Amino acid sequence: MTLLVVSAHAGDFVWRAAGAIALATSRGRRAKVLCLSFGERGESAKAWREGRTLDEIKKIRRGEAENAAGVLGAEIEFLDAGDYPLQETPELVDRMVRVYREVNPSVVLTHQLADPYNGDHPAAARMALQARVLAQAIGYDAPGEPLGAPPVFFFEPHQPEQCDFKPNVLLDITEVFDTKRKAMECLPAQQHMWDYYTDLAKRRGVQVKRNAAPNLGLPHHTMGEAYMRLYPQVTGELA
Amino acid sequence: MTLLVVSAHAGDFVWRAAGAIALATSRGRRAKVLCLSFGERGESAKAWREGRTLDEIKKIRRGEAENAAGVLGAEIEFLDAGDYPLQETPELVDRMVRVYREVNPSVVLTHQLADPYNGDHPAAARMALQARVLAQAIGYDAPGEPLGAPPVFFFEPHQPEQCDFKPNVLLDITEVFDTKRKAMECLPAQQHMWDYYTDLAKRRGVQVKRNAAPNLGLPHHTMGEAYMRLYPQVTGELA
Amino acid sequence: MTLLVVSAHAGDFVWRAAGAIALATSRGRRAKVLCLSFGERGESAKAWREGRTLDEIKKIRRGEAENAAGVLGAEIEFLDAGDYPLQETPELVDRMVRVYREVNPSVVLTHQLADPYNGDHPAAARMALQARVLAQAIGYDAPGEPLGAPPVFFFEPHQPEQCDFKPNVLLDITEVFDTKRKAMECLPAQQHMWDYYTDLAKRRGVQVKRNAAPNLGLPHHTMGEAYMRLYPQVTGELA
Amino acid sequence: MTLLVVSAHAGDFVWRAAGAIALATSRGRRAKVLCLSFGERGESAKAWREGRTLDEIKKIRRGEAENAAGVLGAEIEFLDAGDYPLQETPELVDRMVRVYREVNPSVVLTHQLADPYNGDHPAAARMALQARVLAQAIGYDAPGEPLGAPPVFFFEPHQPEQCDFKPNVLLDITEVFDTKRKAMECLPAQQHMWDYYTDLAKRRGVQVKRNAAPNLGLPHHTMGEAYMRLYPQVTGELA
Amino acid sequence: MTLLVVSAHAGDFVWRAAGAIALATSRGRRAKVLCLSFGERGESAKAWREGRTLDEIKKIRRGEAENAAGVLGAEIEFLDAGDYPLQETPELVDRMVRVYREVNPSVVLTHQLADPYNGDHPAAARMALQARVLAQAIGYDAPGEPLGAPPVFFFEPHQPEQCDFKPNVLLDITEVFDTKRKAMECLPAQQHMWDYYTDLAKRRGVQVKRNAAPNLGLPHHTMGEAYMRLYPQVTGELA
Amino acid sequence: MTLLVVSAHAGDFVWRAAGAIALATSRGRRAKVLCLSFGERGESAKAWREGRTLDEIKKIRRGEAENAAGVLGAEIEFLDAGDYPLQETPELVDRMVRVYREVNPSVVLTHQLADPYNGDHPAAARMALQARVLAQAIGYDAPGEPLGAPPVFFFEPHQPEQCDFKPNVLLDITEVFDTKRKAMECLPAQQHMWDYYTDLAKRRGVQVKRNAAPNLGLPHHTMGEAYMRLYPQVTGELA
Repeated sequence: MTLLVVSAHAGDFVWRAAGAIALATSRGRRAKVLCLSFGERGESAKAWREGRTLDEIKKIRRGEAENAAGVLGAEIEFLDAGDYPLQETPELVDRMVRVYREVNPSVVLTHQLADPYNGDHPAAARMALQARVLAQAIGYDAPGEPLGAPPVFFFEPHQPEQCDFKPNVLLDITEVFDTKRKAMECLPAQQHMWDYYTDLAKRRGVQVKRNAAPNLGLPHHTMGEAYMRLYPQVTGELA
Repeated sequence: MTLLVVSAHAGDFVWRAAGAIALATSRGRRAKVLCLSFGERGESAKAWREGRTLDEIKKIRRGEAENAAGVLGAEIEFLDAGDYPLQETPELVDRMVRVYREVNPSVVLTHQLADPYNGDHPAAARMALQARVLAQAIGYDAPGEPLGAPPVFFFEPHQPEQCDFKPNVLLDITEVFDTKRKAMECLPAQQHMWDYYTDLAKRRGVQVKRNAAPNLGLPHHTMGEAYMRLYPQVTGELA
Repeated sequence: MTLLVVSAHAGDFVWRAAGAIALATSRGRRAKVLCLSFGERGESAKAWREGRTLDEIKKIRRGEAENAAGVLGAEIEFLDAGDYPLQETPELVDRMVRVYREVNPSVVLTHQLADPYNGDHPAAARMALQARVLAQAIGYDAPGEPLGAPPVFFFEPHQPEQCDFKPNVLLDITEVFDTKRKAMECLPAQQHMWDYYTDLAKRRGVQVKRNAAPNLGLPHHTMGEAYMRLYPQVTGELA
Repeated sequence: MTLLVVSAHAGDFVWRAAGAIALATSRGRRAKVLCLSFGERGESAKAWREGRTLDEIKKIRRGEAENAAGVLGAEIEFLDAGDYPLQETPELVDRMVRVYREVNPSVVLTHQLADPYNGDHPAAARMALQARVLAQAIGYDAPGEPLGAPPVFFFEPHQPEQCDFKPNVLLDITEVFDTKRKAMECLPAQQHMWDYYTDLAKRRGVQVKRNAAPNLGLPHHTMGEAYMRLYPQVTGELA
Repeated sequence: MTLLVVSAHAGDFVWRAAGAIALATSRGRRAKVLCLSFGERGESAKAWREGRTLDEIKKIRRGEAENAAGVLGAEIEFLDAGDYPLQETPELVDRMVRVYREVNPSVVLTHQLADPYNGDHPAAARMALQARVLAQAIGYDAPGEPLGAPPVFFFEPHQPEQCDFKPNVLLDITEVFDTKRKAMECLPAQQHMWDYYTDLAKRRGVQVKRNAAPNLGLPHHTMGEAYMRLYPQVTGELA
Repeated sequence: MTLLVVSAHAGDFVWRAAGAIALATSRGRRAKVLCLSFGERGESAKAWREGRTLDEIKKIRRGEAENAAGVLGAEIEFLDAGDYPLQETPELVDRMVRVYREVNPSVVLTHQLADPYNGDHPAAARMALQARVLAQAIGYDAPGEPLGAPPVFFFEPHQPEQCDFKPNVLLDITEVFDTKRKAMECLPAQQHMWDYYTDLAKRRGVQVKRNAAPNLGLPHHTMGEAYMRLYPQVTGELA
């Protein structure tokens, strides 16, 4: 049972999926974050304004992301593929196929396929989906066994409605929210986001309660994360 | 843990949801079918061609549906509200609110909201949804406690693509398919449907396997039913 | 082979479907227009400003519509159900079922299901669709044989994009456009519409040519009407 | 220049549109709130739990809404049409037409057309739209002049993504947010909503800044409300 | 009158479009299948498990596809562009433009534009559409005359609802179904598909009958194929 | 205050956006047209039929576009990136980023993102959007200051409904229509388009009037252009 998180930039997996990651690792599962870039050009405005060089910025963002992954109990790997733009290339997809074959994830998280504010996010998602399908093919020339059909969940973009993000899964992250907050605090350059995403977790928590089956007895301060499931849920019970 | 199935006509719950019903009852849960009409005008062509009267046809359809419910281990209630057209009235919705309050379902199944081939199906669905919301209001004047927020699943219409039915839940009904087949065989006037819906269960079973998480070890002849979940799934784990 | 046109108001069938009607009658087929109202309140501004009474206006609009139908070679029937609003009632739908059973149409034309500028148009469409389905049921209590499954086409609303009208059928009406123009000229109170709908026919004609299969040799001044087919086309040949 | 706000229940206009109302009245314009019901059955859970009677609850909710409207500088009128369900009837629509003719609004605000959690909201919206169109017809039998074509904006539902609410207008309400907060505080039974909707205003304020044209120099704590415009914007300048 | 079928892999044209091809050739028309790849990596699992080499597998798949095309009376050409992934390149599109110019098709069949289970299918479709438009330009530097505007039909993907495949054309293939079955039997490695696609043809045949115009007198065992027409149908008659 | 118009071919900005350009320049604002290609292969059929060479055609189209821009009072720059197909490359996007940084537009106009008749149009739009986002990043290596968030408007494609073009902004261009007509007349090879787009301006003008707020007193011959706004409108007033 392994969770694979494909993140365009170094911070995305923290704001959008830290709850899911912490839930998995708190239950003894492996979680691996694959960062395609460091967000060095597009999501490091503060460092650029301070006059840092590109290499310095990459190093800073890498360190922050490693810290956050550490707090979450997750492994992290960087492909350093560049951002703004994150170019879609066959070579990058091939590297991702190899990660899929190595990790053999039972669940995959990545970005939503639309985001008119940030082209790297859908590019990462398209490659994550393409690599997953390629990794399933026995004839694809990469080490390891063909992949099964792990479900894919899109995590929440910054402006969900503008990205056609209609959540169909609400994840209760109350029990690990403190861990998520600590992971967020590993990213000091984006301090305004700590409260922003705490507020969002409260908001999604309200929706968790509103949509829950009766009598679950959820606590008053339920915290949540929202996801979109791409493929149909396979189940042995409607619930 | 109770399943409530709102069915426009006497046969709908059999073709479209018998697997889900049998799964629930096989696990010791209560299942209740609410038939809004007998399908006496719109889905009893054979009986009309044989010259039966309206009352005879209602009686025949009632008997068949009771037999099918019996095979499935489900209770059944008929509101005899008329079909073709099934008229949406405040009185009928009020009767449905009372059923919700009495049954207190943990899961609700009903028709898809669009069906250009059969207006009764979406009418039943609209009323099932409206009654569910009304039953939640403490101020609604009906006996019993306010309802919680049971999830709603739409079962599969006859021509799914034309009804904008995009399944997001695939239910594995392999273990109860024999029971579903027996329930279908309680409806002798629509014998051509027995094989049609057996073929459909095979087809949905293939999709169950294609979309399953890795290594589930599903049997070769997996049988399935397809559903659309209306509200977001609330969960403590992505899977 | 009979064409049935369900029109909310007295003028709609002329602006939107006169080409299709004239094509049918020019080939010796029966065409029947069913006007649910005269458009007496909502589409007779000029007459109201001239101080006419409601009855006078109904009479005027009826006369105009009869003249236009006459030019097109079509029968016309008025249900005088009132407009602005056109109320959807079981009784009105029942009257329409009886028309379906009597006419036994091979093709049905009506309004698009959405129109944020005019609620009568979608109301007429909803009833036309509901009555068509009811007329198919052998158990529906009305004279005549059960209806088959005639295809339904929505004609073009005044502001197509705002009504989610995406044409999937472009009808070449070049050979009968003069007849359509004459039919339009039977509606003197809306003279500005004559040129408006002539321009529209040119515009749709350009699209006829752009979308035509190669080498059809269409004339320079091809005129067209746009439609949306509701149900799938059944065919023995892809073309 | 007059703003008309059609609200299903007594509180809706406060949570969802108080900013727009306060902006209008702060600029000397007339604003009128039309409450179709008091929300007496569906949105007064606390009062029911306290054992109040229906009449007491209506009176309480009326008083609260009048206070809030007073804070906002708006007129308020109650149609007392009942809630849960708010029944759509020709008579109620007719009363609304008369309000349109009397107020002659230049802008109309109401609920979004979809809300799977609350049927009264879309019912109110459908009637608000129907009445607006009827009021435009010179032949509609009600006092006053025919209405023009005032733009319509849908305000934000409680769970926007589930209601297909994709904002296309973000309103900067920073200068009147204190007034909105005071209006919210007129509704003591829903105290948890005060912070919830303050958080939402911050969230929409962040989006105001992200989507603003360059160099607007918006303040750090911009507050916002989100709207969906139904009809195309008519303008003399792209901006 | 020529049919062009653009198929991502060697088997696709058989499962999805053999009926349309056989209908065309049975009427004396030319049909040409353009296979962009052999499906050597992604759709040849059995051969890989048997330990075949890449070249052997390509040869096997080519032979099977040639046999199937032969049964259908169609020409077949392979571009050997590789699969899993099928890379979209200007060079490949250019080769396809040249095929369009040479074949001058009156009808084009290809894959649906969305398929979350198989990226090669939409890639093939995108290139087929792009090449068609390029071939229409007199200034495009390739031999032959500019193409007209042949209609395009998407054939059915394996999981239609998940691919947003809503059929708007149902093709009656009853008279050639035996030929389709024989063509399918040319693909021995995918024997489980023979029955799967026979069942699908029955299912689509039921829909052919349900959607047919009245009195067509279709046989009991009508077999069908489902298609989506991309561009509006141009016609001289609504039917 | 500067308008930037990204046009795939030399003529597009004239037919589709000349009104908006002329309005801007008539008010003393800077307007710049960026033509990615000359439309030399795909939109110069007449010149090819006359036997012109590629270079001649480019020169002709450049001259015409310069003349039209001159009439409109706009600057024009050509990137000569080739058409049919307009290839999307990182290098071309980078050149566009530099234009954004230099021009610092307050408003951006470009093509709609879908056009099944012309692949160059959506390719231009995708690049225009990507370059806009890249230009916003402080870390993007190009001269100039990071861009703000100028609103983006898509102008009208030739067959709007087929391109999912649903206008949400109607621009009144009455006062500059004569200038638009003169600009169109600078393109002599497409003379049939002069009247076509004059008719379209009338048609959109009718919609301007139908959707206008009351009492605007618009003239009888209002002319219009239709646009789709991509990002939410930010405003301090609902109107």
